[in-house]
Amino acid sequence: MSPESFGARLAAAMAALGPLCVGIDPHPSLLAAWGLPDDPGGLRSFALTTLDAVAGTVPAVKPQAAFFERHGSAGVAVLEEVVAAGRERGLLVVVDAKRGDIGSTMAAYADAFLRDGAPLAGDALTVSPYLGFGSLEPAVTAARESGRGLFVLALTSNPEGASVQHARSADGTPVAVAVAREAAARNAAERQLSGARLGSVGLVVGATVGAAVARLGLDLAAVGGPLLAPGVGAQGAGADELAQVFGDARDAVLAASSRGVLVAGPEPAALRSAAARARDEAARALR
Amino acid sequence: MSPESFGARLAAAMAALGPLCVGIDPHPSLLAAWGLPDDPGGLRSFALTTLDAVAGTVPAVKPQAAFFERHGSAGVAVLEEVVAAGRERGLLVVVDAKRGDIGSTMAAYADAFLRDGAPLAGDALTVSPYLGFGSLEPAVTAARESGRGLFVLALTSNPEGASVQHARSADGTPVAVAVAREAAARNAAERQLSGARLGSVGLVVGATVGAAVARLGLDLAAVGGPLLAPGVGAQGAGADELAQVFGDARDAVLAASSRGVLVAGPEPAALRSAAARARDEAARALR
Repeated sequence: MSPESFGARLAAAMAALGPLCVGIDPHPSLLAAWGLPDDPGGLRSFALTTLDAVAGTVPAVKPQAAFFERHGSAGVAVLEEVVAAGRERGLLVVVDAKRGDIGSTMAAYADAFLRDGAPLAGDALTVSPYLGFGSLEPAVTAARESGRGLFVLALTSNPEGASVQHARSADGTPVAVAVAREAAARNAAERQLSGARLGSVGLVVGATVGAAVARLGLDLAAVGGPLLAPGVGAQGAGADELAQVFGDARDAVLAASSRGVLVAGPEPAALRSAAARARDEAARALR
Repeated sequence: MSPESFGARLAAAMAALGPLCVGIDPHPSLLAAWGLPDDPGGLRSFALTTLDAVAGTVPAVKPQAAFFERHGSAGVAVLEEVVAAGRERGLLVVVDAKRGDIGSTMAAYADAFLRDGAPLAGDALTVSPYLGFGSLEPAVTAARESGRGLFVLALTSNPEGASVQHARSADGTPVAVAVAREAAARNAAERQLSGARLGSVGLVVGATVGAAVARLGLDLAAVGGPLLAPGVGAQGAGADELAQVFGDARDAVLAASSRGVLVAGPEPAALRSAAARARDEAARALR
């Protein structure tokens, strides 16, 4: 029997708890603000406090691998613990590691992040398609087999991103659009089987990319998978820009917020309130 | 005082020992062929045996992070040990992790891989520019400050890569060419100061990309940095294709060979002979 798909699980969790994913980014400046040391023990305390505070309030969390890798294998051991602890608390865990390679190397990343019993297996993984969406196929397959998901980098709001993501193939298709179409094809096939509202191959799309979506002809409503969106809410995109960027795909958006929530810590009650507020703001802005 | 640059160190090592970088890819099938278990102890034995065998015979090694991450933090602990052991044996260590992110997250990856005393700091790191070459700037800076290097994914030989790497910006510049120009600008600035033959911002260019280099107008001789090239030699590109792909930049090519050398193990003498043979073949083909 197939496991329940990530898309189905995420859709249910978003229906119950709203559209927010809390980023777990133990940046040195945040550790300092929380009075924690910049070492594996500090990371652990930071991340577990956050998980305890936001479980039951938001559907998902997103630990950022880079901040754990700063501390080498000891940091990665904390990441393993955090991923498992998040799932134990009923949170969907998106491991933000932006992996991308080819062939047996991509398959090895899938072994690390996308298989039952794998040491770093959350519920989904962010991946990077510079080697072509097709190079990610071992991850797509592993995710499908284990009921996990992917978020593929597509269109980001940092200005340098345009040099790659807006470039066009010989037939005029922008890179970001080609990535979205590949995801859409996978999700269409999956949703025919699962019947779920969302497929399991999501995209990363910056909430503040503005007019680029229309200019490139990026059809996000056709993706049929979740859209992980940094930059929703305070200092980010408001309702008008979200409508411009996501259009009819607004109900597929999982807004990612890190610092905006985390600065409220380390008091659990304050963190929980900040997460609830960010969640409600995102829900309102995405209505 | 600035540390000696990676480009200068690599140029000297290649002048002494030739143009080969041995990939350390503890693929499950190779572990099995060597009679080793697919666990952290097996990885460790595999990698240290390889380092001992090839030190003094080739200038550089390239452990592939994915095969260590398969075993989670315990695998990453082995990777830490392998990186340090490679450097102790006088090998230049290219950590093949293809990291890429923006802002403070990219800076965190630089902290992990590109700073003195960092747990995973080899001599160079492979990085991925889907978020734009400019997003890699924290890594460029950290590498320069610590005498380390980067190899930026540019043009790869897997067929899916073309969908991104051949795409063109509004002014007609292909993505791979834009990446190469950014690297060239960094290397020109560095080489003016260092006087070295090679700068420290290298590219990954597949040796079997063939006519794509000319068709895209990719000027590899202008890069002024090392070109890490999978696919040289047996079953890969021969002298004719290498001349077609690399032209006058042939003396900047660091040929990457993994399986072709590693299948000769686990006997150290056989591994060393295979590495020397691959090195000499690469040198001959790149002449």
